[in-house]
Order: sequence, then C-alpha cells, then structure tokens
Amino acid sequence: MAPSIRNVAMITKIGSSEAEAAASKVARLLNKSKVKTYAVLPLKIKGSVSVTPEELKDAKLDLVFAIGGDGTTLRAFRIIPCRAPLFSINSGGHRGILSEADVGTIDEVVAAILAGKYFYDSRTRIQASAGRKAFPPALNDILVTRVSLTRTPLVSIRLMGDEIKQRMDGIVVSTPTGSTGHSFSIGGPVLHEGMSCLILSPLASVNRMPQLVIPVEEITIQSTYESHLIIDGQETFRIEADRSIRISRFPDDAVFLRLQKKGMRQLAKL
Amino acid sequence: MAPSIRNVAMITKIGSSEAEAAASKVARLLNKSKVKTYAVLPLKIKGSVSVTPEELKDAKLDLVFAIGGDGTTLRAFRIIPCRAPLFSINSGGHRGILSEADVGTIDEVVAAILAGKYFYDSRTRIQASAGRKAFPPALNDILVTRVSLTRTPLVSIRLMGDEIKQRMDGIVVSTPTGSTGHSFSIGGPVLHEGMSCLILSPLASVNRMPQLVIPVEEITIQSTYESHLIIDGQETFRIEADRSIRISRFPDDAVFLRLQKKGMRQLAKL
Amino acid sequence: MAPSIRNVAMITKIGSSEAEAAASKVARLLNKSKVKTYAVLPLKIKGSVSVTPEELKDAKLDLVFAIGGDGTTLRAFRIIPCRAPLFSINSGGHRGILSEADVGTIDEVVAAILAGKYFYDSRTRIQASAGRKAFPPALNDILVTRVSLTRTPLVSIRLMGDEIKQRMDGIVVSTPTGSTGHSFSIGGPVLHEGMSCLILSPLASVNRMPQLVIPVEEITIQSTYESHLIIDGQETFRIEADRSIRISRFPDDAVFLRLQKKGMRQLAKL
Amino acid sequence: MAPSIRNVAMITKIGSSEAEAAASKVARLLNKSKVKTYAVLPLKIKGSVSVTPEELKDAKLDLVFAIGGDGTTLRAFRIIPCRAPLFSINSGGHRGILSEADVGTIDEVVAAILAGKYFYDSRTRIQASAGRKAFPPALNDILVTRVSLTRTPLVSIRLMGDEIKQRMDGIVVSTPTGSTGHSFSIGGPVLHEGMSCLILSPLASVNRMPQLVIPVEEITIQSTYESHLIIDGQETFRIEADRSIRISRFPDDAVFLRLQKKGMRQLAKL
Repeated sequence: MAPSIRNVAMITKIGSSEAEAAASKVARLLNKSKVKTYAVLPLKIKGSVSVTPEELKDAKLDLVFAIGGDGTTLRAFRIIPCRAPLFSINSGGHRGILSEADVGTIDEVVAAILAGKYFYDSRTRIQASAGRKAFPPALNDILVTRVSLTRTPLVSIRLMGDEIKQRMDGIVVSTPTGSTGHSFSIGGPVLHEGMSCLILSPLASVNRMPQLVIPVEEITIQSTYESHLIIDGQETFRIEADRSIRISRFPDDAVFLRLQKKGMRQLAKL
Repeated sequence: MAPSIRNVAMITKIGSSEAEAAASKVARLLNKSKVKTYAVLPLKIKGSVSVTPEELKDAKLDLVFAIGGDGTTLRAFRIIPCRAPLFSINSGGHRGILSEADVGTIDEVVAAILAGKYFYDSRTRIQASAGRKAFPPALNDILVTRVSLTRTPLVSIRLMGDEIKQRMDGIVVSTPTGSTGHSFSIGGPVLHEGMSCLILSPLASVNRMPQLVIPVEEITIQSTYESHLIIDGQETFRIEADRSIRISRFPDDAVFLRLQKKGMRQLAKL
Repeated sequence: MAPSIRNVAMITKIGSSEAEAAASKVARLLNKSKVKTYAVLPLKIKGSVSVTPEELKDAKLDLVFAIGGDGTTLRAFRIIPCRAPLFSINSGGHRGILSEADVGTIDEVVAAILAGKYFYDSRTRIQASAGRKAFPPALNDILVTRVSLTRTPLVSIRLMGDEIKQRMDGIVVSTPTGSTGHSFSIGGPVLHEGMSCLILSPLASVNRMPQLVIPVEEITIQSTYESHLIIDGQETFRIEADRSIRISRFPDDAVFLRLQKKGMRQLAKL
Repeated sequence: MAPSIRNVAMITKIGSSEAEAAASKVARLLNKSKVKTYAVLPLKIKGSVSVTPEELKDAKLDLVFAIGGDGTTLRAFRIIPCRAPLFSINSGGHRGILSEADVGTIDEVVAAILAGKYFYDSRTRIQASAGRKAFPPALNDILVTRVSLTRTPLVSIRLMGDEIKQRMDGIVVSTPTGSTGHSFSIGGPVLHEGMSCLILSPLASVNRMPQLVIPVEEITIQSTYESHLIIDGQETFRIEADRSIRISRFPDDAVFLRLQKKGMRQLAKL
C-alpha cells in the first residue's frame, strides 16, 4: 500500500498568478484532509507554512507540487529534499513535457493522490564536477559551451577508456528525460524515459561528429578554451580552459509521482 | 583460464582469393598446433575438412574465423552454431567496422589466440517474426520498407504499451552493433557497443518523426502496404499489408572473440 | 488586363466523390458564365465535354482545375497542355501544400477568377532522360534508387564539370516546389518556391554526404547497380546498371494560377 | 587580356612565421618583376612598404595575397579596398577551404599570375545593419545568437513579405561561400559557390524549424532577448532585445583571383 501523505510543499512558477491560484486550490483541498502544507517563498498561501528554498532542503516531505512549466519542475528538483516525490502540474508551460496534469483537473488529481492511486517514476540525474567543486544535479542536461564566440575549441571527450577529440562549439550531455529538450532541438533522438543511458550531442561540430548514446558511466570533458557550464538550461558557471569537467550519475534519482502508466509520455507531447 | 581451442571453422568472402589465401594461412598455423579445421564451402582448404553451411549448424566448434568484410561477418553469424565465438579478419571490406584484425597480422593473431590471450565480446541480436514464421536473427538491423515506390504507407509502431503512427517509407530497427550501419547513414546516433538497447530510425518520415532509442523489448511494426523485410541488409522477405511484424531480442547473443579491450571500436573506424 | 477565360478542364482525385462534387460545382458556375468546360475521364460532369487524358494534351485551354490532394496536382501537370495554367483545390489531401483553396470556398474562387483577380506563379520543372528515352517531367522530384535491397551501389553525380562518387541507397533531385516533399522527409532544407535551383538529397549515404543546392544545370547520375527512376513519386521506370541518367530543366514551367500573393506558401503548410 | 599587376599587398596570419616567410618569398618574386609590394602591419617585409590596415582601405591595389587559414582570408576581405582581387594561400589552416594554393607552390603561382593566367571568381557578401549602424560585411556568415544562456528567445524572421516566429538559440545566415562553414556544422546543405542565394540555419530551434534557402533579398531578424551579432565568426557586436537586424546583399562582391577552373571547390575539401 502507498504510504500516507501528510506533509506537502508547493512550488510555483515565479510571477505566475495562475500557478499561485492553482497552488492555493491544491493546498485548500489538502488542508481539508488534514494534510500539512508548505508554500515555498516567494509563494504565500493562507493556511500553509511559508518556507524559504533553503529551509526546504531539510524538510520531511511526502510530496511536492511543482506548478508551472517544465522550468519550474526542473528548478524544484534542485531545491527539494533528495528523493522527495514531485507531482508536476502544467501551468503556462510551452509544452509541459514533464507534467502529469493540467490546472483544470486539480480536484480529480488531489482526490486520486489522497486515495493512493499513484505510482513512482524514477529518473536518472547527472552531476558535473571540476576539481573539488560539484555543481547542482541536472535532470535534463548539462551543456558545456565556449565563452568566446570567435574561437572554436578542440573538445576532448573521454568515456570508458576511449577519447574523442573534435572541434565544436560545445556539447550537450542529456539524460533520457532531457532527450526531448535541448538535445532534441539540435537533432537528437528521443530516449525512452525509463532507460538508464546518456546522449552526447555536439553543438556545431566542425566535422559533424555524430551523437553518441552511452551507458551512465563517468565522462570527462575538456575544452581548449574557457567554457560556460549550464545546468538544465537554468544555472550557469564558468570553467577555465583545459580544466577537466567530470560528469557522472547523481546518486539520488528524481522521483515523479504519477497517476497514469504511460511509456513514451514525452514523445506524445512533442 | 580460457578453454582450449580444438575445432575451428573458416568462412570467407565469396569469390575473394585474398580471403581464401588468408584462410589457408590461418588453417595451416592451426593445423601445426593440432587444431582441427573446417572449411565452409564453397571455400576449400588442403588439410581442412569441407563442410556445407547446413552441416555447420550442428558442428561442435570452439571458434570460427570470418575473413572478408562486414558482410562476411554478418552472414557467418547467421550460419554458425549459436554462441560459437567468431573472430573477424578484415579482407576487402569498405570499413571492416566489425573486424578485429587485418590479413597482415595473421601470425600474431593466431599465436595470441592459441596462447589464450583473448576475451569474449557479446552483442545483442534481434529477430523478427510474423504469424508463425520466424526470420533469421540480425546482428546489425532489420529494415521494413514499402514495396510500391509510389505510395507512402502509414506505419504503426507499438512498444511497451505505446503506439506511434506515422507516414514514412520504412523503418530501420538497429542494435548498438548496427548503429554504425544503415541507421548511421540516415542520420542516427552511434550507440556504445556494450549497451543493451535498440534504435528505431524512420526512413523518409513525412513529418520527420525523430529517431527513438528504446530498451530491448518486443516491438510490433505494421504497415498499411506490402513491405520488404531485410535482415542485416542481406536476406529479404515479403510481408503482406497490415500484417504485424514482431521484433524481439534473439535468445543467443553474437559472441566475438577479441584481442584488444577497446570501448568505442566502431566509432574509431567511421 | 488578364486574358479572358473561355475553355476550362476539370481533373479530380481518382475515386473521390468529394472532389467530383466540387468539380461539378465549379463547372456549373463556369457554365453559367458561358465558359466551356471539359471533364477529364474517368470524371464525368453533366454539361461538360468528356475528354480522355490523351485528348487533353492538344486541347486549347485557358485554365485547368485540379481538385484533390497534391498527388492530383502533380499528375495533372503531366497530362495537361504545356504552360496551361492550373488552379489547385485541396480535397482530401494530407497537407495540400500545392493548393490555393479549399472546397469550401468555390463560389468566391470562381468569382475571383472570372473577375480576373489572379496572377501566374511559374515553377521550375525537371526532366530525366537516358540514352534516347526522355521521361515525363517532374514538378516535385526525381528519385533514383537501387532495385536490389541487399547491395549498396556506388553513385556518381556529375554537375558543372565536377564529379562526386559515394555509396548510397539512392538520391532525390528536387525542385524548390518539391523541397517540401520527399527531400524534406529525409532532412532537407526548404527552398523558397520562387527560386531557380535544385537540391540533391542522398538517401542513406554511407558516409553521410551532405545535401547539395545547385543551379538548374544538367546533372548526370550513374549507379553501379540497376535503379528505379521515380517521377514525382508517381511513375516508375527501370534503369540498367551503369547507364547515365541526365536530369535537366524541362523547357516549360508549371504555371499555377493564384489568388493571393504569398511568399513561403509551402513553409506555412508544413 | 588580363590587366597588368603593379601594386600588391600581403596579409598574413597573425603570429605565424610560416605565413610570414611565405609572404617574404612572394614579395621577393614580385619585386624582381618590378611589382610594388606592401606589407600589412604587423607583417614587415624587407623591400615592401609597410601599411596599417586603415591605410590599406584607400590604397590602389591590383591584388592582395592572404596567407594563412580561412580566418586570414575572411579578415582580409573586411580590410582591403572594395573589389580588390585576393589570392589565398593556405598556411596552417584546418582545411583552407577558401584557398587556391599551398605554400609549397609559390614559385608556380607567382609565375602564373604574372603571366596573366588567372580568372576572377566573384562571391556574394552580406551586411547587417540595425537602426543607423551598419556592421562590417560578411563573406561567410552572420550569426545572431542569445546572450543569456538560460532563456530561449522567440526569434522573428521576415523575408519577402512572410514572417516566421520560432523559439531558438540563434540563427546563422550564410552565403554559398559560408555554406561549408558554421551552417555546415549544424547540418546544413552545401550551396554551389557560384549561386546567388542564402541559407538560414536555426540554432537549436525548439520545434526543429527546417533550414531555408532563399534569394538574396533583405531579411529582418528580431529576437525577444539581447543578442550577439557575429560577423564571419570573427567580430562580435551586441544587439538589444526586440531590435530589428536587417541583413542584405553587400554591394561589393568578394573577388578571388583563381588559377584553376573548378566548380565545387569547397565540397572537395570537406
């Protein structure tokens, strides 16, 4: 039997009054059923405890609602406690590929969740590090790309004992979840979301290096020029020239709470 | 310790005197070391027992040498006993992506094998069936494509509970080994050869359906018009309109005998 | 001032009662205005003269209505007199990229045409020949592809003094009009429909030869194996191995009669 | 008859002693034949007049030698007098796609040029402007791409009366000469170098907008976020959000002096 749900946080798209109204509605329904609710600031909900994103990390949560587009879901996974399940409601997203429901179905969704009619959907995440610095985990992708737009670096990619060296503008390392994101935009295949593998998609490779699908093993990327490192298209860092960037599986998967068994969820929404 | 090698068959590229000369040399070296050798007809070697491809199926073999291009290796795997290890020597192949050695290194190769300095490299194979008919297994790929070149069928692809319907000329289902073959030619990614997954690559999809990378689960393909079914680009069959073609993992992997540990063997040869 | 329209033929999608009803309606409106109408067999319309496709070639026509999908328009251009203007009405086509109007707007369309509120839109066509045999002209594309699906020919492409030789399954030579057809399905760019150039798109080129955009000059294609030659995806011919196929501009453009000035007509419908 | 060559400038790859030695050799051979030579600073050659890049603009030159990789040729065309012919010698370039000769053939090259055995090869150039500011002309391409790597702009492209709006990271507008450069790296076709047209190649278009080949007419590009504008991969400018960037044909073509008639010069070097 599914564990009972007692503590639930709400995270909404910044500045979206539609998402905030939906969060209030979810909280009201949960409060009626004696579930304790938290609103992650800047979101405020009457009847919910306000918490900062920093406080959230140590909270004991049975579920998190992320209400907004895919950007909101990606951001939520970086700030919620590891392995806390997340339910994503699409509000104002372009495609809402990661979401499970729309704002119009909140009553049914909350009822189904409280009745335990759900399942968990675990997704591989990856994490980059350079020297002693570890960067936030990514659910979709890690992009390494040149800072100077007037020079094309030689990029070295080492994986499982092999090394590939090619001149290119950058490279996207995507999880199956992220295969419908940036990697797709540059021509990549869609990876079945239940798989455990990665796709490396070169950006503007001078010799048109093909995309590579590989097991989730440590990869090392090195560029001859200074690079941007971008996590899920949301957080950016600078990496100096010739510094090794290691990318490996993040120990904690992202866990979605889902209502409908559906394999190629992402493909259907493209 | 590696099992000792006592019975070895030779298969060569049809009509290639270079491959036949190489096979004779391999057989002579093996015979000197008291290894019994078989020559698969039409190949004939002095000192080797001649066998037909049909007789080969039931032979007890410790090793098979396939000498020729990738086509020879692919054909060999369809006729040798299941799970018999194969060593591929490139002779006259365009790229010889599957091969482990060239004809110029036969002395070293045979010495290394007899000294037990090798390892096995297992590769996923797939098999198509329609109704009660099962087709030969494929190491590289299975292509389903329209017979009439003046009509574009609607192709239905069912996998893991999902169905995708698109108009296209055909579809290639490739293993990781085959990802550098036909699938690559139509723009596909390279799959790390050690993986267990498949790639579906549509041929001339009207709406540019993306390629899909999926687990090795049963797939069903159905076309609204009569189709060709082609195994490893070598054997062709006809499938009537609207008939379900099931593709699933072949129970016996293809086993290569290898000398050098090397991850992205295929990519390096592209 | 636009020339007055006195003789008009109707061609419809074979077996489509919707297209036939639309053709009857167009003919009725034209007959009312004293325009003489012809129905191309198997289409029959009360009040219109029945003509065979063969008789059509020599008819003196001011306009042809093609009612059906893009296939109907492509076929019509191969049977109508050279340079006779064609007005395409979409009925049951998947996309109707070539069409100018839908069956729901017939009254307005006929009124506008009779009022002379139209313009001509000329499109480059191409024609293949081999030895002394000339094949029908193509408005969209000419496809040359292998007959045997178990062998990959070496294809030689000669143009403007250069020769390219690559192994591939086939090649599509498209006009700008055809750039949204088969060439698009295999990843090609969209060419602005007003341009005078061609695009060569290899089918499954082993080395991923890029697509080429070239001036409308004579091209020669030669394959080391027997080929199919397919005109606009509709008519097929056989070409023996090593025979030169010359492709050059067809002297007579296809002329569309249009009502609305619109540049990237095709792109908007993709 | 070819005009006689009396005034010739030398431009070399910055910091390349090989290119400088080649320039000295060219100058010595020309000086012997009473041709006056100029060395563009920082290059200095004994017997040649030193000039700054700024002074060059107004010089009366019959020929310019650009010695280096393609980057040197692209830079040279932005600083030499309009329509001055340029001869490109490859020295240290990755591919030297634009070059006509290698450093090993200087004697023959200079002799052929002095003997008048050459021809001119004119190439379309394009120029961007925003408001009253005109940017330097581009021989290869103009790239418009987002400054913030965490937001995907909506890009509007207007051409010949049409407008396309798509979310993408950026867009490359290439000439036929540039079709083997950045546009090729992101999957574009190769345009025959003698054509007069442009190719628009979206960078990471969310919906995989296809590439467009269009006549050389004015294009307007507008991005909802601040953009980088990059000329030939060498000079960068900032463009504020929502500002219209107009791109049109530069009135003066780039003129190469060539020795060998060759059509698909670029393709052969890919």
